[in-house]
Amino acid sequence: MSRTRIETDTFGPIDVEADKYWGAQAQRSLGNFKIGWEKQPLPVVHALGVVKRAAAETNMELGRLDPTIGAAIIRAAQEVIEGKLDPHFPLAVWQTGSGTQSNMNANEVISNRAIEMLGGEMGSKKPVHPNDHVNMSQSSNDTYPTAMHVAAAVEIAHRLLPALAKLRDALAAKSEEWKSVIKIGRTHTQDATPLTLGQEFSGYTQQVTNGIARIEQTLPALMELAQGGTAVGTGLNAPIGFAEKVAERIAAITGLPFTTAPNKFEALAAHDAMVFSHGAINTVAVSLFKIANDIRLLGSGPRSGLGELALPENEPGSSIMPGKVNPTQCEALTQVCVQVFGNNAALSFAGSQGHFELNVYNPVMAYNFLQSVRLLADAAVSFTDNCVVGIEAREDNIKAALERSLMLVTALAPKIGYDNAAKIAKTAHKNGTTLREEAVGGGYVTNEEFDAVVRPEKMISPG
Amino acid sequence: MSRTRIETDTFGPIDVEADKYWGAQAQRSLGNFKIGWEKQPLPVVHALGVVKRAAAETNMELGRLDPTIGAAIIRAAQEVIEGKLDPHFPLAVWQTGSGTQSNMNANEVISNRAIEMLGGEMGSKKPVHPNDHVNMSQSSNDTYPTAMHVAAAVEIAHRLLPALAKLRDALAAKSEEWKSVIKIGRTHTQDATPLTLGQEFSGYTQQVTNGIARIEQTLPALMELAQGGTAVGTGLNAPIGFAEKVAERIAAITGLPFTTAPNKFEALAAHDAMVFSHGAINTVAVSLFKIANDIRLLGSGPRSGLGELALPENEPGSSIMPGKVNPTQCEALTQVCVQVFGNNAALSFAGSQGHFELNVYNPVMAYNFLQSVRLLADAAVSFTDNCVVGIEAREDNIKAALERSLMLVTALAPKIGYDNAAKIAKTAHKNGTTLREEAVGGGYVTNEEFDAVVRPEKMISPG
Amino acid sequence: MSRTRIETDTFGPIDVEADKYWGAQAQRSLGNFKIGWEKQPLPVVHALGVVKRAAAETNMELGRLDPTIGAAIIRAAQEVIEGKLDPHFPLAVWQTGSGTQSNMNANEVISNRAIEMLGGEMGSKKPVHPNDHVNMSQSSNDTYPTAMHVAAAVEIAHRLLPALAKLRDALAAKSEEWKSVIKIGRTHTQDATPLTLGQEFSGYTQQVTNGIARIEQTLPALMELAQGGTAVGTGLNAPIGFAEKVAERIAAITGLPFTTAPNKFEALAAHDAMVFSHGAINTVAVSLFKIANDIRLLGSGPRSGLGELALPENEPGSSIMPGKVNPTQCEALTQVCVQVFGNNAALSFAGSQGHFELNVYNPVMAYNFLQSVRLLADAAVSFTDNCVVGIEAREDNIKAALERSLMLVTALAPKIGYDNAAKIAKTAHKNGTTLREEAVGGGYVTNEEFDAVVRPEKMISPG
Amino acid sequence: MSRTRIETDTFGPIDVEADKYWGAQAQRSLGNFKIGWEKQPLPVVHALGVVKRAAAETNMELGRLDPTIGAAIIRAAQEVIEGKLDPHFPLAVWQTGSGTQSNMNANEVISNRAIEMLGGEMGSKKPVHPNDHVNMSQSSNDTYPTAMHVAAAVEIAHRLLPALAKLRDALAAKSEEWKSVIKIGRTHTQDATPLTLGQEFSGYTQQVTNGIARIEQTLPALMELAQGGTAVGTGLNAPIGFAEKVAERIAAITGLPFTTAPNKFEALAAHDAMVFSHGAINTVAVSLFKIANDIRLLGSGPRSGLGELALPENEPGSSIMPGKVNPTQCEALTQVCVQVFGNNAALSFAGSQGHFELNVYNPVMAYNFLQSVRLLADAAVSFTDNCVVGIEAREDNIKAALERSLMLVTALAPKIGYDNAAKIAKTAHKNGTTLREEAVGGGYVTNEEFDAVVRPEKMISPG
Repeated sequence: MSRTRIETDTFGPIDVEADKYWGAQAQRSLGNFKIGWEKQPLPVVHALGVVKRAAAETNMELGRLDPTIGAAIIRAAQEVIEGKLDPHFPLAVWQTGSGTQSNMNANEVISNRAIEMLGGEMGSKKPVHPNDHVNMSQSSNDTYPTAMHVAAAVEIAHRLLPALAKLRDALAAKSEEWKSVIKIGRTHTQDATPLTLGQEFSGYTQQVTNGIARIEQTLPALMELAQGGTAVGTGLNAPIGFAEKVAERIAAITGLPFTTAPNKFEALAAHDAMVFSHGAINTVAVSLFKIANDIRLLGSGPRSGLGELALPENEPGSSIMPGKVNPTQCEALTQVCVQVFGNNAALSFAGSQGHFELNVYNPVMAYNFLQSVRLLADAAVSFTDNCVVGIEAREDNIKAALERSLMLVTALAPKIGYDNAAKIAKTAHKNGTTLREEAVGGGYVTNEEFDAVVRPEKMISPG
Repeated sequence: MSRTRIETDTFGPIDVEADKYWGAQAQRSLGNFKIGWEKQPLPVVHALGVVKRAAAETNMELGRLDPTIGAAIIRAAQEVIEGKLDPHFPLAVWQTGSGTQSNMNANEVISNRAIEMLGGEMGSKKPVHPNDHVNMSQSSNDTYPTAMHVAAAVEIAHRLLPALAKLRDALAAKSEEWKSVIKIGRTHTQDATPLTLGQEFSGYTQQVTNGIARIEQTLPALMELAQGGTAVGTGLNAPIGFAEKVAERIAAITGLPFTTAPNKFEALAAHDAMVFSHGAINTVAVSLFKIANDIRLLGSGPRSGLGELALPENEPGSSIMPGKVNPTQCEALTQVCVQVFGNNAALSFAGSQGHFELNVYNPVMAYNFLQSVRLLADAAVSFTDNCVVGIEAREDNIKAALERSLMLVTALAPKIGYDNAAKIAKTAHKNGTTLREEAVGGGYVTNEEFDAVVRPEKMISPG
Repeated sequence: MSRTRIETDTFGPIDVEADKYWGAQAQRSLGNFKIGWEKQPLPVVHALGVVKRAAAETNMELGRLDPTIGAAIIRAAQEVIEGKLDPHFPLAVWQTGSGTQSNMNANEVISNRAIEMLGGEMGSKKPVHPNDHVNMSQSSNDTYPTAMHVAAAVEIAHRLLPALAKLRDALAAKSEEWKSVIKIGRTHTQDATPLTLGQEFSGYTQQVTNGIARIEQTLPALMELAQGGTAVGTGLNAPIGFAEKVAERIAAITGLPFTTAPNKFEALAAHDAMVFSHGAINTVAVSLFKIANDIRLLGSGPRSGLGELALPENEPGSSIMPGKVNPTQCEALTQVCVQVFGNNAALSFAGSQGHFELNVYNPVMAYNFLQSVRLLADAAVSFTDNCVVGIEAREDNIKAALERSLMLVTALAPKIGYDNAAKIAKTAHKNGTTLREEAVGGGYVTNEEFDAVVRPEKMISPG
Repeated sequence: MSRTRIETDTFGPIDVEADKYWGAQAQRSLGNFKIGWEKQPLPVVHALGVVKRAAAETNMELGRLDPTIGAAIIRAAQEVIEGKLDPHFPLAVWQTGSGTQSNMNANEVISNRAIEMLGGEMGSKKPVHPNDHVNMSQSSNDTYPTAMHVAAAVEIAHRLLPALAKLRDALAAKSEEWKSVIKIGRTHTQDATPLTLGQEFSGYTQQVTNGIARIEQTLPALMELAQGGTAVGTGLNAPIGFAEKVAERIAAITGLPFTTAPNKFEALAAHDAMVFSHGAINTVAVSLFKIANDIRLLGSGPRSGLGELALPENEPGSSIMPGKVNPTQCEALTQVCVQVFGNNAALSFAGSQGHFELNVYNPVMAYNFLQSVRLLADAAVSFTDNCVVGIEAREDNIKAALERSLMLVTALAPKIGYDNAAKIAKTAHKNGTTLREEAVGGGYVTNEEFDAVVRPEKMISPG
């Protein structure tokens, strides 16, 4: 009893393990591209299932595809969508730049699974042919970009945006909790005029709020699909109306408002929508880097740092320094942000390198894009759950720092002028004295005037 | 008669050339930052004029600023806006990261010019004080970011978007002109099914159309202004309502719909709007790189390249090869795109590095952003005028290439199946024969069937 | 019968699956960092084994470590080195930035495995304690960077450099094979003076030769090890001489000339050696991108491209266009190069972000560095085996293109002057005639002179 | 009297201002490339003078060039080298990617200036022709890359390396000055075991020392010159031996050991040496970013930051906060580093984009490379002079922070075990007590033992 079966393509026969659904082209790709450990991202695999199901439905509706064959394709594609056939998608990221081999992997798996369902012989291509039926009205050149867009939009909608919303809410809750905790501000890393800890966190909240809006802005273009362009964008071999109908089906299957791209030549030869959407994701990484970096510095200490925040202690921090606790969630998040910055460079580069009717950097773009989405989403959740919600204000430290600040002198400037106020601050700094000592002692104001003007609680808003 | 005058700041007196309007802090900056040749961008200088005029108007309206002093400030600021005082802004990009010294440069120039107008003595700070009057209700920390946003939005609106529209229109005109020129398509740089040259250029047109829309999407956030946040975002020392009113004034002066930022802590400590907006500009550079690269390859030859386009000949191309003409406009444009890609990396990095209440990478961000805008705008115009509008289709070459193509076999696939069609193409490739010879000779179709199906003009659309 | 056991750390007890060797801190990390799918790279895991074995040997030699315990640690560490315990290193890349948790993962696995060998109870920390014995004289802060360097150097030496040498040799062989095939040169993508195909490939060969030398140049610094710096670089809790001896042991175990870093403060707080070494790797990616891109363009066609090279046909190229064959190895390689460019951006960013005595971007740096090495190595081998060695020159096409070239006119310039030569070329271009027709017809040279001068085989060298 | 004269090239006549030495091709470039404000870098202009002089000397030596003409070319070229003709090089960076127009600008200026010296008529090309004489044995394709390499190496040798040496020496002096100032270490931004301030600065010193060595490592390859390859690398129209001799002349003129590149095809089609050398410069920027960032954080305060360093006060720090002083030199330097990071991305991208026999990104590569060199050099000097040499240790603050640290407990770990030591530190942290109170009070050690072991001065080295 043989443990392999023979599959064929236009290059001839090739052995495939008997318990695998894939066919000749996927098998050939395994042999020709032994590069790295990175596999085609599962969201792309599942999205290929979506495309194949939607195409079969559309082909049936347009009277092109035999109903029995079509129904089997739909059932097999649904298994792909649901992840039931994941082990049958073994191809590397690093393959042909069109993703043709992964499209064929999907065609082959669905064809063989459908053949199996219909009682046929796997590898026979009968009654369900991977090209003529599963790939009907399609080319890899429109299918893989469509799957990229579907995967990207689904992952953003169901994974990243909820994660960012969760983080935003946690930051907003802290902002509200600390709305009356007045602290020293810092500009240029130097002591500055006061604000509340709640105000400081309101800035972080606003950054995440804006980030969500930015990503959402880019979604409509990301939800424009290349499907229907076939080989070079003309739609050759696809029936009239296929592009519009297949987009509707994809929208129905995913529950997201996908549309057909207005110009298929652009949709095949360029992936600007991916580049721009990742530009928004990159901006979110810029924001989160700043937030996490601030939080670790505000939490520095415990004895000889800024010491304004106490971060949750989740694990031992050192293999040599007993009792040490570190801002590890900030570190994981900032590392993720760095990865996103690198991915942004890769995506921009890849996006610029299309030639004529096709950009052949599809898999590397999909890989980087989806990695960014997954990492930022997971890291945002981890950071929220394991850090933000548990942060406590170290109010004693905050109060002490505020009281010794020299920058409260700013409140005096409108009264005694910038130049006099500067003299007070500089003298106090030089002498190690307080502002009051120098302001009153220097005859600039009386004690009562000082008390009336230099009040941190009056310095945290206009007016 | 002295050729210098004495200016003072809180660090003491310092000599300034008598015919320069700047004061002590600008002079000190010249001495402390002898770095590079890059000066503060003029759009930022002019935008500082806008801010100072708007602030004076608002302070007068709110009853804070003496009308005589205010009027003089407004007149002097207007001269800054109009570029009349450009030589008085000598500072380097590479200075304090807040841009404080450039803000003070503006305060000092306007103060001295206003003093001069009012018959006072330059350097006396009377009756117009650079801090107490010109900088009234402001801090560098909100002023410089406001000027960055104003400069960025103005340059985009008045320079970049018109340039891109011009390029889009030129590409669209070529797309229309060539709508009936059928040519071979190329995917993976290899021969593929046909399309029209007009369709190919419609893809380029769509890219630029999308790019304009992307930049426009980012403008509302870029037009949110930090002004009113003062030192750390609280608005300390600014009157209630200042933020809103000054944004209205800036909108009125510039004719663009600027608004006040909803959260000033975010607006000072982060410059995410700059990062995201440049992400859109970066995406445009990605698009233009692809377009220019295609055009130079399609124009390659004249005898031994693809030879489908004849690009305008603008200058001799070689100092050694007589008669050589090169795609120099494509080269200038792609070099500009590369610069934008580098600038995007710099901006993202800088944007992530805010500390606490302030990001101190303002000048490097402004410099890179404004360089990208200027270069892309100028290069788009140059590329349009000196290349796109003059491109001609080399129709003889295009026709010959189309006719010898093997990929027309794709039209046969729906009729005879993918596998048979592949055999025909492969045999013709191997034998150096035509598709017809192999298709008819191999008994797959009759001559009549071949003629009916393999018709390039039928292969450029669905159905 | 319990399927878990209890492990403890300074945070208390925690359940671990009974058949896993890891302990409390690794388990805690699994719970706290559910981020992404990327695991700590196996080369780092194996390198941690090297460090732990070397440290135990050194501690025994210095009389610090009980010989029985030491011997057990060495045996367990050896299993880590050999990959036998890979499944016991489950941690994510995205964890604490020092890699402490992966260092502890190694300490725990080796401790438990050693305990098991010695007949003790896993989790008891007796007789082999993960911190006190396995981590003796070490801190995560020197251990993880040491492991990074060891992993990086080993992967470069044993994987990347041999792969590049293989590619260089294949290119050199083609250069030799084609040393007499004269072809048209192309500058600015336009026809230029001739060269041999062998000369063209000699340029590629030189690029790879240089790339190997560049990487080798950076190896000595990469082989400087942080080990011995312990917590902050001072070497606290490590015996005198430990740093030097442990580096010797690591060199002995790996067979590579590792040394101890001259300054441990630098070695912990910065990872400049990683950044610079990856700069060399990035340069190699720049080279390979150019080579692969040239080869795909020279191989474009088969009928309507440049058509000078025939690339091996490894698989069907299109799911819709029958018989299409694509330069897929070029595409895989250029995608890998793009990934390396992105990784370079990430590494530079991460390298700049150290704070005080520690850089906490270790795992993201290790991950990116090792991914680049692995991908470039694998892709170089795949590109060599599946593309370069099988490339054939399409000499008919090459000859035809050479003969119709106008740039052969350059040979006439020294004789008749640049300006006259330019007139000949331009006229021939305009009239669609040959150089000979215009040169002789225009009275510039006689037929005999033309034959004597315009000889491609004389135009491929100086003199 | 006419204010213009007529110049001609193969495109015909064109007017040039009478007092300018440039000719038709430079004038045409001014009209065709109205892009941005960035001019060809002066170091490239001067290096073109070096090349033209060296080529004339070599052509004369080889008997190709009339001695009178040659002598005039040499004199004119010398004026270019010395900067006397800078105003006659008006071309933009953004021109043809080969730099042909700047090479012709040099040919034209030198030709006209030599004609003038010889009493001829400017624009007549007699007796000194820009192509036939000044450009003799050269092509733009080897000349411009040669000038890039010469400019890059000269700027590195004479500007950047001395600046870095100056910075290294200043850091080393501080390291020596503070070798006995014991302070708290910080890892993960959290309190850690102690080290001396001198040790901390020794790490910075090592980084700069390494950076200098890295740049020096890359110089030999950067000093390999393309000259002699002429149009496509073959050396057509250059005499045998020209390449070697011209490199010798360039070495003699500049005093730097330039050599001829071993493979001219590589030298024209790739600029890997520029990419790699900038990789070393990028690594230096990574180092300097870390150093400057540390120094600003250690200098944060003055009252509520880490407060360990007092940075020189060079100018007022705020337009609103009187008396504020900021780490502005750190800010200028870190902004410069960010620019270098962006430039590195641009250079890598450009370096990968060569096509066939030529890379047409020369000017953008030269511009970015030389900007990085200039900025880093200037910023290193400014940072040294205006910051590093004037930094003072705030020893009171340093001592206080050290004394309250909990991480001194690490010294107890070898004696009482990691787990017990952790309990002490955690209890002290929780209770706000000292280590001594918990260590002795908890019965772990006696007061005498504590005194004997927990001694910071014993914790700053191994053993």
